[in-house]
Amino acid sequence: MTTAGVLTLLSDFGFQDVYVGVMKGVIAQINPRLQVIDLTHQVAPQSITAAGFYLINAYRHFPQGTVHVAVVDPGVGSSRRAIAIQTSIGFFVGPDNGLFSGVLAQSPAIAVVELSNPDYWYSPQPSFTFHGRDIFAPVGAHLASGVELKKLGPTISPTDLVQGPVLGWQQTNSGIVGYIQAIDTFGNLITTIPGNRLQDKQWLLEIENVKIKAGQTYSDSRPGEPVGLIGSHGWLEIAINGGSAQTLLDLREGDALQVVFKDYPAIEIE
Amino acid sequence: MTTAGVLTLLSDFGFQDVYVGVMKGVIAQINPRLQVIDLTHQVAPQSITAAGFYLINAYRHFPQGTVHVAVVDPGVGSSRRAIAIQTSIGFFVGPDNGLFSGVLAQSPAIAVVELSNPDYWYSPQPSFTFHGRDIFAPVGAHLASGVELKKLGPTISPTDLVQGPVLGWQQTNSGIVGYIQAIDTFGNLITTIPGNRLQDKQWLLEIENVKIKAGQTYSDSRPGEPVGLIGSHGWLEIAINGGSAQTLLDLREGDALQVVFKDYPAIEIE
Amino acid sequence: MTTAGVLTLLSDFGFQDVYVGVMKGVIAQINPRLQVIDLTHQVAPQSITAAGFYLINAYRHFPQGTVHVAVVDPGVGSSRRAIAIQTSIGFFVGPDNGLFSGVLAQSPAIAVVELSNPDYWYSPQPSFTFHGRDIFAPVGAHLASGVELKKLGPTISPTDLVQGPVLGWQQTNSGIVGYIQAIDTFGNLITTIPGNRLQDKQWLLEIENVKIKAGQTYSDSRPGEPVGLIGSHGWLEIAINGGSAQTLLDLREGDALQVVFKDYPAIEIE
Repeated sequence: MTTAGVLTLLSDFGFQDVYVGVMKGVIAQINPRLQVIDLTHQVAPQSITAAGFYLINAYRHFPQGTVHVAVVDPGVGSSRRAIAIQTSIGFFVGPDNGLFSGVLAQSPAIAVVELSNPDYWYSPQPSFTFHGRDIFAPVGAHLASGVELKKLGPTISPTDLVQGPVLGWQQTNSGIVGYIQAIDTFGNLITTIPGNRLQDKQWLLEIENVKIKAGQTYSDSRPGEPVGLIGSHGWLEIAINGGSAQTLLDLREGDALQVVFKDYPAIEIE
Repeated sequence: MTTAGVLTLLSDFGFQDVYVGVMKGVIAQINPRLQVIDLTHQVAPQSITAAGFYLINAYRHFPQGTVHVAVVDPGVGSSRRAIAIQTSIGFFVGPDNGLFSGVLAQSPAIAVVELSNPDYWYSPQPSFTFHGRDIFAPVGAHLASGVELKKLGPTISPTDLVQGPVLGWQQTNSGIVGYIQAIDTFGNLITTIPGNRLQDKQWLLEIENVKIKAGQTYSDSRPGEPVGLIGSHGWLEIAINGGSAQTLLDLREGDALQVVFKDYPAIEIE
Repeated sequence: MTTAGVLTLLSDFGFQDVYVGVMKGVIAQINPRLQVIDLTHQVAPQSITAAGFYLINAYRHFPQGTVHVAVVDPGVGSSRRAIAIQTSIGFFVGPDNGLFSGVLAQSPAIAVVELSNPDYWYSPQPSFTFHGRDIFAPVGAHLASGVELKKLGPTISPTDLVQGPVLGWQQTNSGIVGYIQAIDTFGNLITTIPGNRLQDKQWLLEIENVKIKAGQTYSDSRPGEPVGLIGSHGWLEIAINGGSAQTLLDLREGDALQVVFKDYPAIEIE
């Protein structure tokens, strides 16, 4: 696969410290012509689940051959492996801790290598605590510059990769049971229920005895009233027109909810 | 107008989610050579007033032909129009909700189009909730790559655009009455009073019975004492040497204040 | 020295306001082909100490000839000088207030100039409050584009530069006394004790009667337990596996601590 010359970065480093800037410095040393794009650096500290959610929402929207470097790495310095994965849509570089499980469920691995070739590291002696700088960013920069995957280290079987946690959903007699998998900056509650399961159906959302009607957009409810809609990421989400669904409904990640299919009357917005 | 190959992004998306990263992915798919610059993504949620203030302070400092994409869009998914505007200094792309009123008051529209040509969208079926990804970012990337404005959709009269709120100022017998239009990260209070109205004059600021003397720079007051000065954006602002004027004076956006012209003695800093 | 076409920005401006975006606009007006990288814009307001710490941790990881523009500038508008410094590794541009003292202790100045030549400013009349936009960003962009240092203004002796505060460390009979010099986003406490002083030694950390054992990586302690380790920046730091050392130990910048050399038994992780 030809690379796009585009590299993304995702981490839990935040923007206060210079960790992200330093990774970009290392990348610029290898190839200052790469286009480096931040996905987010505000993943909840060490949350592999949140990082996986962000990756799934982002990777499809980048050019073919983009290299995605993800560093949420609670096991840094331990024996966890460093890996690079090729899929039909792009490359993924990071620790082998389940970060990429969600992406690979959608876009299977074509090849996986363990990053054990120090020729592509920042230095032959990586630190014990910052493999983002010492291994992942430089390997990503080499990949995005056209280095072949197989040069980075020996091949691993995709089935040997560590599996990350995946919150699912279940079909029931009356509808679908799912979970809140993430909460965005606006307080919108993003569920695990795929939007395409709700197409051409009449449905209603139930969560802890609150009934929430279906809509298409944030303004499909009166101010202050919750609405269920298919978000731009493709999942069912709960939003409030002009407010925070998280605050109003007092829910958190992992909470269960239910979509009930029924012949409800069409939504009326007064 | 020749484009500069530079595109700016402004939104209320914050940096925690991947919305901004995804817009950059879409832009990179169209043209990975563009220079993409964040103005801010921390506009108060859905605040058209704040977004307009940031745009006015920023647009003049970019190369001729820069494309400014602004996505503060409470009406996304409703019938509000998506627009692109050409002025003598650059292009503006976003929802037709008054975001650009302040800019257009300074730099009038030469041409306006409605973004109804799906050839320049991310997909022919835009989502109901994320036109930043589906319409504004890709249209902006095409414009910044040299696509002509008129190809994006039919022409609209500039007088048909939705007008945003504009806080003004009034000349009085003894001075000028204005308002606090924004508060920056340091707690400096930025007023609606243009600095050029105060040039070569002796003046004093009055706000809720507090008198604040005039200065030129933040150090023109003793630590902890407020000073009025012409900010780098050209407006009168109230600052405190080493502190937050907002906290000390307990003021907020929209609060009124008055500049009084008088023959006050020159400022003495002890 | 050839420049790398890479320019970094560091400031206390935060990301809410458009100050950082405006500096990038000014840079794009001079040379839209430069690679502009943010080190951080979340330095504690006006903290020259924190800014110096971030610069020391970052500058070594950038290409030879990179231009580092740093704007933490409590004296803006006063008589403090604006300077540019050449070292063997790159250039530094900012106010003469001690920001660069730590860097220069590691990488001495080859040449220093005062930025008094308005040909390289944004306008011949800089504002009193935003030299980042009016002097430092444009001078940095010119330097990164190949303008010679000596064209920017008259030479200053490096010994005439303002000295910034430097927290040190002392060898004692039983070990080393140092200080907490910074606290990162994860709550890790970064000390002033250089890691290379601890190599090949058995040691233990003591801070306010708490004893903290030595490790190599964050997982070298049980969850919730503190560990001392050499951070990726090269300093001794105190971390907690899965938690915040700052919160648990209730310490802050400037607090003293002691490394004790002893023949302690090797660390056991159960």
